Amino acid sequence: VKDAKIQELKELESRLSALTHAQNLIYYDGVTLAPSKSEAARGETLAVLAGESHHLLTLPSSVDLVENLSRMELDAQTAREVKELKKEQDRSLRIPVEELMEWSRLTTRAEDVWHTAKLENDWPAFRPLLEKLLTMSKQMAGYYDADKDPYDVWLWENEEGLTRKQADPFFDTLKKEIPTLLQRVQEAPQPDTSFLKAACPLPAQKKLTGYLMDLLTIDPGYCVAGESEHPFTVEMNRQDVRITTHYYEDNMASSMMSVIHEGGHALYEMHISPALDRTCLTGGVSMGIHESQSRFYENIIGRSRPFAGVILPRLKELFPQVYENVTEEALWRALNKAEASLIRIEADELSYGIHILVRYELEKALFSGDLAVADLPGAWGELYQKYLGITVPDDARGVLQDTHWSGGSFGYFPSYAIGSAYGAQMLACMQKEMDVWAFVREGNLAPIGEYLREKVWRFGRTKTPKEIMDGFGGFDPQYYISYLKEKFEELYRL
Amino acid sequence: VKDAKIQELKELESRLSALTHAQNLIYYDGVTLAPSKSEAARGETLAVLAGESHHLLTLPSSVDLVENLSRMELDAQTAREVKELKKEQDRSLRIPVEELMEWSRLTTRAEDVWHTAKLENDWPAFRPLLEKLLTMSKQMAGYYDADKDPYDVWLWENEEGLTRKQADPFFDTLKKEIPTLLQRVQEAPQPDTSFLKAACPLPAQKKLTGYLMDLLTIDPGYCVAGESEHPFTVEMNRQDVRITTHYYEDNMASSMMSVIHEGGHALYEMHISPALDRTCLTGGVSMGIHESQSRFYENIIGRSRPFAGVILPRLKELFPQVYENVTEEALWRALNKAEASLIRIEADELSYGIHILVRYELEKALFSGDLAVADLPGAWGELYQKYLGITVPDDARGVLQDTHWSGGSFGYFPSYAIGSAYGAQMLACMQKEMDVWAFVREGNLAPIGEYLREKVWRFGRTKTPKEIMDGFGGFDPQYYISYLKEKFEELYRL
Repeated sequence: VKDAKIQELKELESRLSALTHAQNLIYYDGVTLAPSKSEAARGETLAVLAGESHHLLTLPSSVDLVENLSRMELDAQTAREVKELKKEQDRSLRIPVEELMEWSRLTTRAEDVWHTAKLENDWPAFRPLLEKLLTMSKQMAGYYDADKDPYDVWLWENEEGLTRKQADPFFDTLKKEIPTLLQRVQEAPQPDTSFLKAACPLPAQKKLTGYLMDLLTIDPGYCVAGESEHPFTVEMNRQDVRITTHYYEDNMASSMMSVIHEGGHALYEMHISPALDRTCLTGGVSMGIHESQSRFYENIIGRSRPFAGVILPRLKELFPQVYENVTEEALWRALNKAEASLIRIEADELSYGIHILVRYELEKALFSGDLAVADLPGAWGELYQKYLGITVPDDARGVLQDTHWSGGSFGYFPSYAIGSAYGAQMLACMQKEMDVWAFVREGNLAPIGEYLREKVWRFGRTKTPKEIMDGFGGFDPQYYISYLKEKFEELYRL
Repeated sequence: VKDAKIQELKELESRLSALTHAQNLIYYDGVTLAPSKSEAARGETLAVLAGESHHLLTLPSSVDLVENLSRMELDAQTAREVKELKKEQDRSLRIPVEELMEWSRLTTRAEDVWHTAKLENDWPAFRPLLEKLLTMSKQMAGYYDADKDPYDVWLWENEEGLTRKQADPFFDTLKKEIPTLLQRVQEAPQPDTSFLKAACPLPAQKKLTGYLMDLLTIDPGYCVAGESEHPFTVEMNRQDVRITTHYYEDNMASSMMSVIHEGGHALYEMHISPALDRTCLTGGVSMGIHESQSRFYENIIGRSRPFAGVILPRLKELFPQVYENVTEEALWRALNKAEASLIRIEADELSYGIHILVRYELEKALFSGDLAVADLPGAWGELYQKYLGITVPDDARGVLQDTHWSGGSFGYFPSYAIGSAYGAQMLACMQKEMDVWAFVREGNLAPIGEYLREKVWRFGRTKTPKEIMDGFGGFDPQYYISYLKEKFEELYRL
């Protein structure tokens, strides 16, 4: 009877996996290739499929199955699957399916409205939707965990174990250290970045994407690169991962760094243990761990001095007019120019954490009720003034710049900063076991990937973020601060 | 209670529509963009989703619902939905879900094996799969309708109302008329087609695609063109249709005619009545009616003398070196060169029906048991010799050329020939109501589309193919023979 129940469990998980595969592909297609006016019908399909997953998980037979299995002695992996599934099931049972579908429809619509509002710098158009999203997300948080503060629920959803209690001191550290360091950097002599703005033909940029994916050891048989307005990664399964980038003729580095960033996400998804295929334990464990991988590749590797040496010959080959006289040193410095700026996704590695800090403080205030949605643009401007000393000229370059809230993602931003900190700590541990920079210098990223596969990727969701970080001695944000200080003091000769 | 039941019905149909949307997109993505080694996991997802649709339709509550509604007095559209759904449900109830999923897995695998077998001219690799497909498709036909001959079941599936009893005399007419006409054509002086093989740069060919879609009145907000090895059309829904083409530098006309052909399919799907959205009555009614539209646009319009006048200026603009000295007359003649040839999808409008005749005779023999799969390549060669007088040099250009059987599509081919015949009859009727060629000459295809929308497209599945053709005076294949004779006698001055 146990074997039959386990068989039933695997079947349920396979059905849920198929629905997720479908939803992820429909999403991916929607932001890459789908006809421009096809959105309404796609939104309806996505809502229905979300309803199907909910339905399947909450069927009386599914509830009985999970209940029965919870009381049996199981191998470690199956026990973990049951635990995960039970968590999701309990939560789903508390969410009326109509509300789930309504939530799905609302986010599809809000993303559409946000898209136009950003283009047209039209905050009033987006405001009522954000109000609805905030109200509904508080309500949803109540279904997830009625005993927790709603914002803590969303932090936890994105990073298991994270609440304001942990996030506050982390961001306090950033607040204390980064603005001072950024100030010193901004007062020092600045690198020449003019060549980064020179025109680089798109066909050659597309060739560079292929070269970078190869350098990152991404097998193109299982992962391909597409184009979308905002770069992202989505997995159908371990053997079918998609990354996207956005090409700008006068900003080659934008696509280059996006490909490396998304490549880090892709490597993680592609190397989850095959034993977890079509179970609820496949996929990256959390947003923070995911961002630790993408930002590790993008910033720690991709913006390192040795990496500049690896890619420069290729840049000279692909864009001879632009890179003919650029040195490794100059490329490295230009890619790391740090400054207070308006746009998060274009921010340098140093100031990036401050962009996140601003969003964290605003999200907290929105959820606590200290800040009304109507006052958000003003508060946004104040915080950019306070922490970065710059004036936000309009909402398109302010509160409307990010897509996250329009998709109902609250409590997501902090994982970018936490992931950066995880990555710095992973680097410190990795360096104790191998000469990381010697491998990078040779353009041989395989040993680095193998190390991360061993300690992070293969586990999927079989370990919590905390358990992953315990493999690196337990999370300690000081690694991040040390890393930033060392790197930027060297860069700016402070 | 009736309103509540109707509401439940609409919900069931919406869920089934969402699953179809997902399956169609996964298929589309699989043959256009998906990573090359992602197929196994995709096949599993498609099998599971096929299982979900089956499951949903055969739930006791769905059976009760349809049963209850069948006994109620309903508006015409809802009554038709119930009838359609009941038909599908009865059939699904007879098919064990495991066999359905097995069938889905088999066709995914067979398509993969066929793909390589064709490239490598390796019939023995594909043969065991075709044997399995044939056995299983006979078994499936038994579930569909145990009282009918299995091949008649598949003919009927592709074209409601069609069995060998109707198809035999139709193909007898083609067999009697076409080879004689083709013979006369081949003995006449031949047009120059050399410019059709001249190199045309792909970027300009892609521009031509956009121009043609616009000319066909396809709104790019609801339909986009992609690339795949074999051109095809697939709809997610009325507001999201995808066509594909394949570009060859030295065969511009291949993509040009594919875009017009697939454009015909797309127009049909895009203009089905919005009242049928997310019901089982949306989508084209049959393969024959679908092919009547695609082949109407491709051949009747796209290979007409006036259309050559419309596109030639654009070809001169896009490919000046090639088309500088080409006249309308020369273009028209070259696009219509008729001859006995090996490959169906490259065949001209006249000989095309014979390619279909060969496949029809072979399918009949395979299903009756008169022909073993092992003897298929030999029989293929004999029929090409018999009807077209040519020798098939290898299996890649013979029995392995088409994808249909590998996907489990038997009884599909006849719909191409029947669709061509429908199209010729539609033209004859259309000409009684408007000066078709005057509109084409002006490059104004809107009135033609409006006529077809009114008489074909908007109905979706609310009319049978027979009922659609009754709108044109009842199907009569003589229109097709007259059309071919008139066109090719003029072309070849016979």
